[in-house]
Amino acid sequence: MSDTEMIGSGNMKIDWVLNHMPVLNIIREQFEKEKPLAGHRVGMALHVEAKTAALVETLAIGGAEVAIAGCNPLSTQDDVSLALHQKDNIQCFAKYDCCTEEYYEAIDKVLDFEPDITIDDGADLIFKLHTERTDLLPSILGGCEETTTGIHRLKAMERDGALKMPVIAVNDAMTKFLFDNRYGTGQSAWDGIMRTTNLLVAGKNVVIGGYGWCGKGAAMRASGLGANVIVTEIDPIRALEARMDGNSVMPMKEAAKIGDIFLTTTGNRDILKREDFEVIKDGAILANAGHFNVEINLEDLTAMASSIKTVRNNIKEYKLTDKRVYVLADGRLVNLAAGDGHPAEVMDMSFANQALCVKYIAENKLPDGVHTVPSELDIGVAEMKLMSMGISIDKLSEEQSAYMSGWECGT
Amino acid sequence: MSDTEMIGSGNMKIDWVLNHMPVLNIIREQFEKEKPLAGHRVGMALHVEAKTAALVETLAIGGAEVAIAGCNPLSTQDDVSLALHQKDNIQCFAKYDCCTEEYYEAIDKVLDFEPDITIDDGADLIFKLHTERTDLLPSILGGCEETTTGIHRLKAMERDGALKMPVIAVNDAMTKFLFDNRYGTGQSAWDGIMRTTNLLVAGKNVVIGGYGWCGKGAAMRASGLGANVIVTEIDPIRALEARMDGNSVMPMKEAAKIGDIFLTTTGNRDILKREDFEVIKDGAILANAGHFNVEINLEDLTAMASSIKTVRNNIKEYKLTDKRVYVLADGRLVNLAAGDGHPAEVMDMSFANQALCVKYIAENKLPDGVHTVPSELDIGVAEMKLMSMGISIDKLSEEQSAYMSGWECGT
Amino acid sequence: MSDTEMIGSGNMKIDWVLNHMPVLNIIREQFEKEKPLAGHRVGMALHVEAKTAALVETLAIGGAEVAIAGCNPLSTQDDVSLALHQKDNIQCFAKYDCCTEEYYEAIDKVLDFEPDITIDDGADLIFKLHTERTDLLPSILGGCEETTTGIHRLKAMERDGALKMPVIAVNDAMTKFLFDNRYGTGQSAWDGIMRTTNLLVAGKNVVIGGYGWCGKGAAMRASGLGANVIVTEIDPIRALEARMDGNSVMPMKEAAKIGDIFLTTTGNRDILKREDFEVIKDGAILANAGHFNVEINLEDLTAMASSIKTVRNNIKEYKLTDKRVYVLADGRLVNLAAGDGHPAEVMDMSFANQALCVKYIAENKLPDGVHTVPSELDIGVAEMKLMSMGISIDKLSEEQSAYMSGWECGT
Amino acid sequence: MSDTEMIGSGNMKIDWVLNHMPVLNIIREQFEKEKPLAGHRVGMALHVEAKTAALVETLAIGGAEVAIAGCNPLSTQDDVSLALHQKDNIQCFAKYDCCTEEYYEAIDKVLDFEPDITIDDGADLIFKLHTERTDLLPSILGGCEETTTGIHRLKAMERDGALKMPVIAVNDAMTKFLFDNRYGTGQSAWDGIMRTTNLLVAGKNVVIGGYGWCGKGAAMRASGLGANVIVTEIDPIRALEARMDGNSVMPMKEAAKIGDIFLTTTGNRDILKREDFEVIKDGAILANAGHFNVEINLEDLTAMASSIKTVRNNIKEYKLTDKRVYVLADGRLVNLAAGDGHPAEVMDMSFANQALCVKYIAENKLPDGVHTVPSELDIGVAEMKLMSMGISIDKLSEEQSAYMSGWECGT
Repeated sequence: MSDTEMIGSGNMKIDWVLNHMPVLNIIREQFEKEKPLAGHRVGMALHVEAKTAALVETLAIGGAEVAIAGCNPLSTQDDVSLALHQKDNIQCFAKYDCCTEEYYEAIDKVLDFEPDITIDDGADLIFKLHTERTDLLPSILGGCEETTTGIHRLKAMERDGALKMPVIAVNDAMTKFLFDNRYGTGQSAWDGIMRTTNLLVAGKNVVIGGYGWCGKGAAMRASGLGANVIVTEIDPIRALEARMDGNSVMPMKEAAKIGDIFLTTTGNRDILKREDFEVIKDGAILANAGHFNVEINLEDLTAMASSIKTVRNNIKEYKLTDKRVYVLADGRLVNLAAGDGHPAEVMDMSFANQALCVKYIAENKLPDGVHTVPSELDIGVAEMKLMSMGISIDKLSEEQSAYMSGWECGT
Repeated sequence: MSDTEMIGSGNMKIDWVLNHMPVLNIIREQFEKEKPLAGHRVGMALHVEAKTAALVETLAIGGAEVAIAGCNPLSTQDDVSLALHQKDNIQCFAKYDCCTEEYYEAIDKVLDFEPDITIDDGADLIFKLHTERTDLLPSILGGCEETTTGIHRLKAMERDGALKMPVIAVNDAMTKFLFDNRYGTGQSAWDGIMRTTNLLVAGKNVVIGGYGWCGKGAAMRASGLGANVIVTEIDPIRALEARMDGNSVMPMKEAAKIGDIFLTTTGNRDILKREDFEVIKDGAILANAGHFNVEINLEDLTAMASSIKTVRNNIKEYKLTDKRVYVLADGRLVNLAAGDGHPAEVMDMSFANQALCVKYIAENKLPDGVHTVPSELDIGVAEMKLMSMGISIDKLSEEQSAYMSGWECGT
Repeated sequence: MSDTEMIGSGNMKIDWVLNHMPVLNIIREQFEKEKPLAGHRVGMALHVEAKTAALVETLAIGGAEVAIAGCNPLSTQDDVSLALHQKDNIQCFAKYDCCTEEYYEAIDKVLDFEPDITIDDGADLIFKLHTERTDLLPSILGGCEETTTGIHRLKAMERDGALKMPVIAVNDAMTKFLFDNRYGTGQSAWDGIMRTTNLLVAGKNVVIGGYGWCGKGAAMRASGLGANVIVTEIDPIRALEARMDGNSVMPMKEAAKIGDIFLTTTGNRDILKREDFEVIKDGAILANAGHFNVEINLEDLTAMASSIKTVRNNIKEYKLTDKRVYVLADGRLVNLAAGDGHPAEVMDMSFANQALCVKYIAENKLPDGVHTVPSELDIGVAEMKLMSMGISIDKLSEEQSAYMSGWECGT
Repeated sequence: MSDTEMIGSGNMKIDWVLNHMPVLNIIREQFEKEKPLAGHRVGMALHVEAKTAALVETLAIGGAEVAIAGCNPLSTQDDVSLALHQKDNIQCFAKYDCCTEEYYEAIDKVLDFEPDITIDDGADLIFKLHTERTDLLPSILGGCEETTTGIHRLKAMERDGALKMPVIAVNDAMTKFLFDNRYGTGQSAWDGIMRTTNLLVAGKNVVIGGYGWCGKGAAMRASGLGANVIVTEIDPIRALEARMDGNSVMPMKEAAKIGDIFLTTTGNRDILKREDFEVIKDGAILANAGHFNVEINLEDLTAMASSIKTVRNNIKEYKLTDKRVYVLADGRLVNLAAGDGHPAEVMDMSFANQALCVKYIAENKLPDGVHTVPSELDIGVAEMKLMSMGISIDKLSEEQSAYMSGWECGT
């Protein structure tokens, strides 16, 4: 494809999703009028695909200059990246299948641009700010973090006294994690697995590593597609929930023996490792929906393999002594690296939170540390979403409010 | 039935559930050895049926003297009540279908017994302590509260500076509300509705009032029984969740026009009221799973009715001008008033928390106010439950712990 | 309860279900006007509970004289039986918990009444007609059979040349077996199990014996209640269906080791037998939803038991060497013997078919053998049902009819 | 891509699916040894993608010469087509996005090859044989038909006395339609819709046109993905089933007003037409999973549109006066035209039936007309499939067989 065709294709994708992001569109109209980000420079590291582009555009329309890098070597869509780079006040440095060096170069370019507000998905930008680019910290007003893994890192930094800027934990907005992590990951991970493998989910033993919000979504959809679902957990309360939701629960070492498809969603490393590969069935399919590619220990797998080859687009076959194991998208998040990421409608809410939080940082002076999304923004996003879906709900009557705040009415 | 037969029947029910409450049994054995409640007097107001009796026995085995009243006029099972009253160190004052006066008399008898620890389900005992029986407050070490509604009342009291004793919010233990409120209410409410009506759930429009944990459970099971589920809410975030879980969402006034079966689970009043009754369909079935009988406004319904008669056990027909409306169990919690309450296995966890919290109060001096269940107790209950179910789970490796507490590992 | 109270209670139950059987009500009105059964004598052996009573009344209103016995020793509701017996032109000989002798005496009384049309549920009436009461055969116009098991028997008789009367296989009407066997059994069996045990279905290993229509319904609802479902089958095609519907599939001998609740729905004997009891878990619950009490081999279980005692209403504990096994309702159909049977709305369709087939037999001369329900009756029942539910559907346009009957239109 | 790359890509796809078609592999090994098709010429018109290629190879391995054309202008994958064409004894004439003329030319080339056995998917080959190429009929031994629509056409021909060859209705094998039409279409249609639109299914109103096996699968999966499902039907019995399975049921004219995504699965024309487009919502997505592209009336839609443009790969926007309507894959079967078709594991069973039926035709002389798949082949496929999945099932004991064939054992 020529560059012009690439840009055309990228813009087509952006327009399509924008059509399905009504809340972001409302914010866009407000930003257009009020220009709340005028004079600000937003530096971003996110998955560069169409929904992200819609957010970037929105920030630029709000008056910001924006520079963006990818946040994962395999999640960039080059047509979208190129289309984005052409737009006013936007620079995009993301490239699909870049090597680690290129990946960090792009992050550096974003920082060279001297942003005063950051948006991260996995905290790589903030991490670099706090290690190699500390000179930039004084001019930073604050940042936003998109994902559970990033917030986990940031809270560890905060605990160690290492976090030197305010960051809003956008992931922890209820209109984000309850929807994006659950319904978003639930659908998009299976979309990625199905389109990549063309295999049947019904009747398979599907093993979900982790029963957090992503894992709950992934298990719910696997079950909805006809699978027999097995969950592994380290948390006894979540393990009980998984069981009472109709799943089997067992240690991974047991699950490995019977699983047909494995999907990790924990945010931790080594969910599948040597001892699991030793007992895994011939033909097992391994995929990851967690942020980093550490959940499936590919070093272990590579060490055990007599050969590794691509057997279908995005599928690598690892030949072990007595069996073949198939890894999707090199263990990177399967929904983005082997699909188009979350559906537009859930990213609508996630990115509406991002846009409103960037504005909030621009307008408020926050102390260093990890902050929650202001509740009124969170509820506002929900209300706009409901409205866009044509759904109205009940309101508390005065009698009901009084009843709820009282304590004298008994049996 | 003679008293002896009643006692036999009650004991049979208690033994049956005890067999299915493995965590409570473990605690019972510990209590038997350690007698941690020796010298304490526990005053209770709970639904007096078999699972509660198992808790009461456990406390007595732990060394306590126990007095108990009901916490709802229709939820007492008389055979269990009588059987309980015969046991050592236990007095039971609960009676089925008692009038309001008898109900409060029973509460008074429990207080006359001068407890130093209380257990409530709806906070009626604590309310009376703070209004008519304040003389007893000084000798109270603390209390436990079982249900969302009671905690709501207690927090309102705390906010008003009116709470003069420490209370542990047992309901808010994760091993309580995530299971009891969701899987417990989900199953038992539909058990109650099905056995009372002998009607088909499949193919019906089922309206669930509220999408809290009880509502989520009730909606999930209605859907599992083949219903088309409609949810009403006042909270926009929960409304979105309800919708994305596959339900319809609309105001009650709209839902009233199409619903076949209504089930309220909000903890608030007037979920169904005059304006809804005006548009409701002929033959609509109304049931409540919330703590108090205020969710269906029976005053409104009575005022509109030309006649009211019982048409099947636990079903009253209200004849309005142009239609008939059926109310189950007089709008009291249908799972207890028209069934046997939550399944034994979920009450096992709830009451394990109760027993451990009573012990905790006996052994620790807590300040006045509402307290959360100590996390180690909560997790301990989950671990005992998993063990009793024969389920083992994974443990964090050292590498995984290090990874989770670190923040330096990126893409 | 006095007889008057019994009759009152029985009539209340009948009125309640009649209110929820709209199709039968339409037929009732037609029968009232047209008296199509005038001069006929209908002999029946069915589960005598409220829905059956509504059918009996309908036949009487249509002009028939009716005599009815039970079709299962534990499924009769005595209040309904007594209420029915008081009505004009109706004699009812059914009694709850009758012994085998009484059971067959009642059948004999129905035959003494010299019916010209029969309705059976399990073919006991027809069997007796063909063995001990062959003198009555010449005056028989035909019969109707309600259940899979009965039809199985009748087809075996037909194959052996032993069937000497026409019988309509009412069970095989699509508006019968697709609904009654699936949604009816699915709900009512679990209603019976839940109300009898007060145990949690969620998180249990539930073993369903057989994946016919009843088994499919039972598995679907178990899953909808949160169970992990295991299916046993002898038919490879049904076994595949069960697996792809998300269930586990294995031989009973394996399932026996891990099941918590067992429910048989096969119509065959020995689904659970000695070799299964040997490996079954302590505390296993056994229930049957098949027509006869032969699916759980109680002779084997009794022979292995050191003691047998009732531990809750309708639950017998069999103590084996190393464990306890619980049998519900003595292995008789749990939905009727420990519940109120199928929901009224599905019996509405089943019994509408019965009423229309009795009329059909009265008006048509059929040859000996097993006959299907005339398709126009079947579809008519579906249309009346949809109408009563307020549902309208599409109609084929002329273009569509032409398209469907043509074969010339290709790609 | 160069031809060599195309062939490499095609072969990679074929190898991948073959790995997941264990039953076809067993047959392949038998064919390799026995060469049952030696001397036969098989002419085919099927969707030319990887699973079909695996069937074609199997037939060639069995000794046949094979020529194949596509059966739908948009379902061919060119890399697979080219790879297939290189193989011994195989000629492939299929091309993606061919015009109607090219399409029929390819069919003619297959017939020029003078097959004695045919395999059709939609009956285009047989239709041409009976209209323009009747000279070939005398040498035809028989044919196999893959899909409901084709069988519908063939039965219409048979009814009209126009069918002049024997055809086995492979679609009607239980191991075909119960799995391929239900789980295959259910998954692959949604795979196609999700990957094409990147939109969320959860919380959408999804309208399924038709509740046959394909519609049941499509509805089940939509529900499993979190949609609120509405079914349209013309058959009252299926309409009742749809309702009791938890769906809403209404005429399309009503559904059109509220649907977000429409999926037709009827085999008939005009499921969505002018009167529906008039009331449809802005942004509605239309897709078809039926064999021919007549279910969505694109002539009506085109006539109403002021503009038509491609807005994303495989999505056309039709701009009407007051709204935009989006049609996926030009209304051709979305699972093939916008995806990779059914999962390999279900096609394994469908094509195992095809291979065995071709052998059956080669070895048996059948009379003209539509024949069912011999039951032993059907059951054999199920048994091989279960074995390949590692599932064993129960066997009837002698006592059980005796019980099932007897009729004397009663209550």
